[in-house]
Amino acid sequence: MIGRLGHTIAAIATPMGEGAISVIRVSGDSAIQKVAGRFKGKHDLTNASSHTVHFGRIIDLHNKTVDEVICTVFCAPNSFTGEDTVEIGCHGGIHVTRRVLECILETGVLPAEPGEFSQRAFLNGKLDLSQAEAIADLIQAQSDRAQQNSLDQLEGALSRQIHLVRDQLMHSLGLLELELDFSEEGMALIDKKKLENHLRTTILEMDKLIQTYKYGKVYREGVRVALVGIPNAGKSSLLNALLNEDRAIVTDIPGTTRDFIEEKLIIEGVLFRMIDTAGLRETEEMVEKEGVRRTWKVIRGSDIIIFVHDSTKKITNDEIYFIGMIQKENQKELIIANNKIDVQTEKLPTKNIYNNILLIETSAVNNTGIDNLKNAVFNKVLDKSQAENKESAIITNERHFSALLNAKQSLNSALDSLKNGESEEFVAIDLRASIDSIGEIVGLVTSEEILNNIFSKFCIGK
Amino acid sequence: MIGRLGHTIAAIATPMGEGAISVIRVSGDSAIQKVAGRFKGKHDLTNASSHTVHFGRIIDLHNKTVDEVICTVFCAPNSFTGEDTVEIGCHGGIHVTRRVLECILETGVLPAEPGEFSQRAFLNGKLDLSQAEAIADLIQAQSDRAQQNSLDQLEGALSRQIHLVRDQLMHSLGLLELELDFSEEGMALIDKKKLENHLRTTILEMDKLIQTYKYGKVYREGVRVALVGIPNAGKSSLLNALLNEDRAIVTDIPGTTRDFIEEKLIIEGVLFRMIDTAGLRETEEMVEKEGVRRTWKVIRGSDIIIFVHDSTKKITNDEIYFIGMIQKENQKELIIANNKIDVQTEKLPTKNIYNNILLIETSAVNNTGIDNLKNAVFNKVLDKSQAENKESAIITNERHFSALLNAKQSLNSALDSLKNGESEEFVAIDLRASIDSIGEIVGLVTSEEILNNIFSKFCIGK
Repeated sequence: MIGRLGHTIAAIATPMGEGAISVIRVSGDSAIQKVAGRFKGKHDLTNASSHTVHFGRIIDLHNKTVDEVICTVFCAPNSFTGEDTVEIGCHGGIHVTRRVLECILETGVLPAEPGEFSQRAFLNGKLDLSQAEAIADLIQAQSDRAQQNSLDQLEGALSRQIHLVRDQLMHSLGLLELELDFSEEGMALIDKKKLENHLRTTILEMDKLIQTYKYGKVYREGVRVALVGIPNAGKSSLLNALLNEDRAIVTDIPGTTRDFIEEKLIIEGVLFRMIDTAGLRETEEMVEKEGVRRTWKVIRGSDIIIFVHDSTKKITNDEIYFIGMIQKENQKELIIANNKIDVQTEKLPTKNIYNNILLIETSAVNNTGIDNLKNAVFNKVLDKSQAENKESAIITNERHFSALLNAKQSLNSALDSLKNGESEEFVAIDLRASIDSIGEIVGLVTSEEILNNIFSKFCIGK
Repeated sequence: MIGRLGHTIAAIATPMGEGAISVIRVSGDSAIQKVAGRFKGKHDLTNASSHTVHFGRIIDLHNKTVDEVICTVFCAPNSFTGEDTVEIGCHGGIHVTRRVLECILETGVLPAEPGEFSQRAFLNGKLDLSQAEAIADLIQAQSDRAQQNSLDQLEGALSRQIHLVRDQLMHSLGLLELELDFSEEGMALIDKKKLENHLRTTILEMDKLIQTYKYGKVYREGVRVALVGIPNAGKSSLLNALLNEDRAIVTDIPGTTRDFIEEKLIIEGVLFRMIDTAGLRETEEMVEKEGVRRTWKVIRGSDIIIFVHDSTKKITNDEIYFIGMIQKENQKELIIANNKIDVQTEKLPTKNIYNNILLIETSAVNNTGIDNLKNAVFNKVLDKSQAENKESAIITNERHFSALLNAKQSLNSALDSLKNGESEEFVAIDLRASIDSIGEIVGLVTSEEILNNIFSKFCIGK
C-alpha cells in the first residue's frame, strides 16, 4: 500500500446496508479536483475552503445525475489522513452508493484497500500505530469498557507511557554509547549502579503494563461464560433472568454464526458472552450425543462455567461426574447455581457435596440471587479495584503485549550483563533491542511488511 | 409525528453495522444548542456558520469523552429538513455510535421515528410527497433503472407533470365555478365543447401516465423469473451461465430469507430475480413432494418461467404435462430453453411439440444462446422503445397509480355529465374530486393519518 501513496484513493466509509445516508471518502493529492470534476453544485469544489459543505449532484460520464449529495472538503493537512480529502454524503442505498463510488473511480481514483486511509494517517504523522489500532478496536467495541480503553488509547494514553519509558532508555543508551566512543580514554560517564537501578525500575514499569493485558484482553474481547447442567435444571430461564435488565442495550452482531446461541450480557460495563448449552447427559442416542459433544466443546472454549443444579432434586451421579470433568479442564472458573430455590421443598445438603466450589442460590422466577451470580461472574475474572485502576494505560492488543515482553526480556538481559560485569557493548546492544521493541508499539521502527499486515486487518473505508 | 414538530429529534442515519464512519442526524429548533452542550472542540457550535464542519469530542454527562467526532452544522432553512440540523460523524462501530446517540438523547432530544426527518422536509416545503417517496425508493433501488426513475422523481419529473395537469384542471374549474356564481345572470364563461376537449385530452394524458406503471413497477421491484424443469435438465448450470457476466455487480441484500435461493441478474439496467427450483417430477416421496409443491408456489409467484429441457433426450410425458400446467397458470410468460445443444446427438424434433411457445437453444457449456435467452426474458416484459421512452415521467408507486386511476374516473364522470347536459354543478364536483386525487400524489391534499402511514414505512434516520 505504501507504494500507492502518490495516488488518490476512495472507498465507502459507512457500513454496507440500507440507511438514510452513506459516506464515500476520497483522499489524496487530486481528491478535490477529481470529485469536483464529477460534482455539479453552486460552488466549484476546487475553490472551496477547508471544512465546508456543499450541496449538489454527482454526475456520470454522460453527464447524467447519479445522486444528490453533500460534499465536505478537508484541505491538507487538516483531515483524517493528512491529505486533501472529500467526503461525499449520498443517499444510503446499496446500489446508489456503489454507483456514486463508481463515478469517482472512473476518474482514475484507486479503490482503497482495507485500512489504507488509516495507514496514510499514520504515515503522515496524524496518528501513531497504537492510535490507528485503537480506531479499529473502537469500531469493534461491544461494551463501555472496551470503548473507553480504545478511546484512551486513541487519545494517546498508551503512546505517552511508551514514549516516556523509551525516552529514559534512550538517555541511558546515549550515555553508554558516548562512554563506548571514548572508551580508550577511560572516561566513566555513567554510574553503573544508577544504570542498574534505572533498568530495574523500568522493568517494573513494563511489568505493570504487561499485567494489565490480563484484563485488557477481557475488556476488549469479552468473557465467555457457558451455562451447563443436566436437562431441565433451568439453564435457559436462568439465562433469561440474567439478561433481563440489560437486554435492551444488548446488541446482536450480524454475521456471527456459532453452534450455540450467544447472548451478550454487560456487567459493570464489561462484556460477557453467555452461551446456553444443550443439557448434559450420558446418552447413546445420536442426535443427543452430538449435542453433548458440542457442549463439551463450548465448555473447553469458555472462561467461566456456570453449572446449574435444580435444588428441588437430589444431586445425581451424572452431575457429580460432570462437575468432576469440568474441574479437570484446565483453568476453568466454575460456579454452581443452586437453582429453583423458590420451590418449597425440603432443602437438600448440596453445599457439602460441592465442597470448595463457589455456590450461589438462585431463582429465575423470583429473581433471587441473580445479582449475586452476576457479581460472582464478574469477580471471577476481574476485581473491582483492578477495574477502577486509572493510573496506568491498559494493554488490550496482543501485538503490544508481545512487544513489551520482548522489550522486558532485552532489559533483563542487559541487567544481567551489567551485574556480571560484561562489556558495555553487550549492555548497549540489549538496550537498543529493548528500545526497538517498545518502539514497535507506536510504530517508530516498523517494517513495511508489518505495517501492511496490521492495516490490512482493518475494514475498507477505514 | 406531526404533533412532535416543535421538538428536536435525532437518529443514526447510516446503515447499522461496522464501518469507518457513522452519522447521527439531529434536527429541530434546539439541535445546534443541544449538540453544542455535548461537544468540545476549538469552536462553539452555536456560533458556527451554516455548512461548516468542526472536529471535536462528544462528552457524556460526567464530562467523559465518548468519541472523537466531526460535526456539520446546517442552519435553517438550508438543511434537508428545513430546520437547524447537526450531523455528527463518529466512528462507525455499533456500540460507539449508540453511545454518541445516547449522549444527545440525554439532553432531552427525542429519538426520531421512521421517516420523521423526511416528513419534516415535506411539511417544511423542502420536498413534495412524491419526492419524499422517491428517496425511500432510491435507497432501496437495486438496479440502474430503479435508481434512475427514483432520481428523476426526486428531481421533480413526476411533480412537474402532475402540477401541469392539475393547473389546467384548476383553470377549467375556476371558470366553471365563476359561471355557477353568476348562473342567475345566465353568463356563459366557458365553452362546453372546449371543456369537453380539454377533459378528453387530460384523460389521455393521465392514461399515458397510468400505462407507465406497467414497466415502472417492473423497474422498481424487478421481474421474478423461475427456472424449472425435470431433474438434470441443466437448470443450475444455465442459471450460472446467465449470471456469469454480471455476478460481480450483483448484490445480495442481507436479511431476506426465502424458500429458494434468488440470484440477481441485471439486463439493460433492469433487475431480474432469478429463482432456481427443485426438479419437477411426479413423486410419492415426502421430501421430494415438498420440493415440488414449493416449485409450483414459485411458478405461481413468478412473472416469467424458463422451462429447461435437455435437448439430448426425448421429451417426456411428464414434461409435456408440466408445460401444459404452467400454461394454464394465468398470465405466465413461458420460454423454453432447449439446453445442452453442445452435446452431439441426433437432434430431436422438439419445436413441433412446443408449437407456439418461444424456444431458445442454449448451452451452458459453450455459452451458446445465453444472450438470446436474456433478450427473450427482457422482451417478455419490456420492449426497448418503451424502456427508452424519456418523454413522460414514470409511475412506479402503487399509491400514485391508484390516485391517477381515481382522478381519471372522476374526469370520465365529469365528461359524461357534460355530454348528457347535466347540471354544471355535477361537473364541478367531479372536477374537484379529480383535482384532489392527483393532488394526493404530491401531497397537496393529504390527511395527517395518510402522511403518518406513508412516512412510517421509511427507515429510521431518513
